[in-house]
Amino acid sequence: MSRYQHIQEAAYAANMQLPQLGLVLFTFGNASAADDAMGVFAIKPSGMPYADLSPAKMVIVDFDGKTVEGTLRPSSDTLTHAVLYKHWQGIGGIVHTHSTYATAWSQSLRDIPLYGTTHADHTTTSIPCAPPMSDEMIAGNYEYQTGFQIMQTFAEKKLDYHEVEMVLVGCHAPFTWGRTAAQAVYNSAVLEELARLALLTEQINTQCAIMKEALIKKHFERKHGEGAYYGQE
Amino acid sequence: MSRYQHIQEAAYAANMQLPQLGLVLFTFGNASAADDAMGVFAIKPSGMPYADLSPAKMVIVDFDGKTVEGTLRPSSDTLTHAVLYKHWQGIGGIVHTHSTYATAWSQSLRDIPLYGTTHADHTTTSIPCAPPMSDEMIAGNYEYQTGFQIMQTFAEKKLDYHEVEMVLVGCHAPFTWGRTAAQAVYNSAVLEELARLALLTEQINTQCAIMKEALIKKHFERKHGEGAYYGQE
Amino acid sequence: MSRYQHIQEAAYAANMQLPQLGLVLFTFGNASAADDAMGVFAIKPSGMPYADLSPAKMVIVDFDGKTVEGTLRPSSDTLTHAVLYKHWQGIGGIVHTHSTYATAWSQSLRDIPLYGTTHADHTTTSIPCAPPMSDEMIAGNYEYQTGFQIMQTFAEKKLDYHEVEMVLVGCHAPFTWGRTAAQAVYNSAVLEELARLALLTEQINTQCAIMKEALIKKHFERKHGEGAYYGQE
Amino acid sequence: MSRYQHIQEAAYAANMQLPQLGLVLFTFGNASAADDAMGVFAIKPSGMPYADLSPAKMVIVDFDGKTVEGTLRPSSDTLTHAVLYKHWQGIGGIVHTHSTYATAWSQSLRDIPLYGTTHADHTTTSIPCAPPMSDEMIAGNYEYQTGFQIMQTFAEKKLDYHEVEMVLVGCHAPFTWGRTAAQAVYNSAVLEELARLALLTEQINTQCAIMKEALIKKHFERKHGEGAYYGQE
Repeated sequence: MSRYQHIQEAAYAANMQLPQLGLVLFTFGNASAADDAMGVFAIKPSGMPYADLSPAKMVIVDFDGKTVEGTLRPSSDTLTHAVLYKHWQGIGGIVHTHSTYATAWSQSLRDIPLYGTTHADHTTTSIPCAPPMSDEMIAGNYEYQTGFQIMQTFAEKKLDYHEVEMVLVGCHAPFTWGRTAAQAVYNSAVLEELARLALLTEQINTQCAIMKEALIKKHFERKHGEGAYYGQE
Repeated sequence: MSRYQHIQEAAYAANMQLPQLGLVLFTFGNASAADDAMGVFAIKPSGMPYADLSPAKMVIVDFDGKTVEGTLRPSSDTLTHAVLYKHWQGIGGIVHTHSTYATAWSQSLRDIPLYGTTHADHTTTSIPCAPPMSDEMIAGNYEYQTGFQIMQTFAEKKLDYHEVEMVLVGCHAPFTWGRTAAQAVYNSAVLEELARLALLTEQINTQCAIMKEALIKKHFERKHGEGAYYGQE
Repeated sequence: MSRYQHIQEAAYAANMQLPQLGLVLFTFGNASAADDAMGVFAIKPSGMPYADLSPAKMVIVDFDGKTVEGTLRPSSDTLTHAVLYKHWQGIGGIVHTHSTYATAWSQSLRDIPLYGTTHADHTTTSIPCAPPMSDEMIAGNYEYQTGFQIMQTFAEKKLDYHEVEMVLVGCHAPFTWGRTAAQAVYNSAVLEELARLALLTEQINTQCAIMKEALIKKHFERKHGEGAYYGQE
Repeated sequence: MSRYQHIQEAAYAANMQLPQLGLVLFTFGNASAADDAMGVFAIKPSGMPYADLSPAKMVIVDFDGKTVEGTLRPSSDTLTHAVLYKHWQGIGGIVHTHSTYATAWSQSLRDIPLYGTTHADHTTTSIPCAPPMSDEMIAGNYEYQTGFQIMQTFAEKKLDYHEVEMVLVGCHAPFTWGRTAAQAVYNSAVLEELARLALLTEQINTQCAIMKEALIKKHFERKHGEGAYYGQE
């Protein structure tokens, strides 16, 4: 039995949820689960159909992207996961999908505007879209640089990655994260719905305005503030 | 056995229909069932996955929003339900969802125009969109005020809540109701389809006009007038 | 055993296909099957959920709309079916739905343009949209007049109802028919897809032109002309 | 046991995947599997419902379109398959569908622009749309000419059919191919998603630009270049 079984099981469960939630076609996505103290994460093997996965097939990789355990090649996006785990504290899981609406927003190079309370229940700002990297960064260690591009976007926009747990990578597709892999999966499904809602909102009203500050504040605090009163805890 | 079992079962059945009808993602919705004579309603516990629900978990709340029976915290939208039950007569069930198309119309701050007989089969007017509340109302008892905002919209537009059993809360999402919880669920599914139809209609014909009065009258009376001849009764 | 069992079974099977093909929400649709020689048709009872149907519950109605056998009230659209059976020869089944895209085109009061071979495989012209009736016709025997409105549209546009087996009723929704009830159901599903394709085509290319005549002719004849070579017969 | 059993089974499996992937309505599609050395391919019988298929019913046809084994009539699109197998080397399977979004792009007569990495993971160029044929070609041996029209489009646009394994036939619908029938099916599903993503991208950002060259190159090489590092081989 692997000493990494707990994160293998978490990563496996997270990966298996992606097709069930309609977030991936074929193998267009991957989820990972990290153990901060051990400095490693478990991630989907590259290009393997979801039906062929098992917890034991999850590859164990350290925060520099080096495979620690497992004979399969880890996801081609592994270095992006590694960079975020290494530099951001308290992240227990990361999910990458090419879910349709979030990917279309990524391709359009636009942030997703905050048009309603469904969005504000999860974050108080637009969902940021990281611009495409410079040609030099792309030609270099691409997936590694993708991680830094995400971090730089958060730095420039002064966003807190514990408050905004999702990003669009320009011309590519979304990444989400959370304190657990299950939370990262949840955020991927929420992002897809927010992306769809925002497009429909703009189609219904081409003059649509961002939701006003008082409502943004109220809805986020219902779920996340000190006086949060949503849920059972 | 609880003396509230009848409304707990009705509320449970209504809540369980919401994911089956594709109207909710995760826990983004709630249904309640009221007993007018007892002055109480049964409502979904807050933030609990639909798969974990049972009739006994439905929380019993009075029309002032005070929990009467049950140890779980009721839905965060409980006060909105309470206000409508208290002030509107003959309402047996209320449903709140963030269903995609109805929510997009809510975010666009537009009433849903009456473009066809599918709409007229259910109501003779546009589906009203209540404007966002003032900042003071939002900062105050938000969910309680949401109920009053809905009532005020109906008063200003001179709408009869027995004739129009649905509303869009601006920047938020829809509420529907009916003489039973099952009817409120039905209205939520109908509203979602009317919202989708109206957007598609405007996309196909950007100069689309409201349906003419004679057809509105005819279709509503087929189902609801004195000489109604739709259905088996 | 009813002497109408053959059409009851055909009508039942046709009705049950409608929700399976995603063409109806709740009870928003009805199918009938006729026996020309007997001068009657079997049709869905009004407002009854599909899950509660059985062949024996199909109501037998003559071509003047009078119930011949059965205790349930027939579909509220029965007179429209009756008029078409009475005046058009060789129709074995009729289907009415409020399927989303076809209904949106109906509400937009536009014919569905012939943009591609999927459309031409089934008909050589636009799918006609019958304009809403005069207020007098609406206030009179509405469903009866709907049948005449459809026939008049075919007469004015010089369409052959054996060649074009579908129509949009303006502000309302589609009707389709065919030599059998099964063929009418097939046509309803095809119409819904043609309606969806046409909207998407206009969204992708706002300057889109009707498909050229040579292709229209070729594709229709592949399936329907004398030298048809599609299928096994 | 037929000596063609291996391609019959491959063609059968490919055909059965089409409805499962949501790519065909009724019988609007067909898949074939070829054995280059034997100079034949197995293809779906014309107009037969997917539920009635079996491997033994797949018709064996040579690269000139002549039936070699089987009593059923082969797909009406058989000659298009035959032409491509005869003139293009190393094609093991071909799929034709009328999948919704790819068909809408075909009807719009536009190439699908390369807007993101999901697209670049599969090809480095726009997905080409072959213009409708001349009236003479249509009136002649239509399906045979469709094959040549596809080949001519690839020649004119200087595309490599091993690098771009998909095409839109103008006013008609897509064809895809690959080294195996399974790969051709995969390409059909990918094409449908790329078509949907491209439309949504243009709806979100009407000024959307083609993705820059460095990203196109990087993503294609991740999966297909000499240093490819996606997947397990």
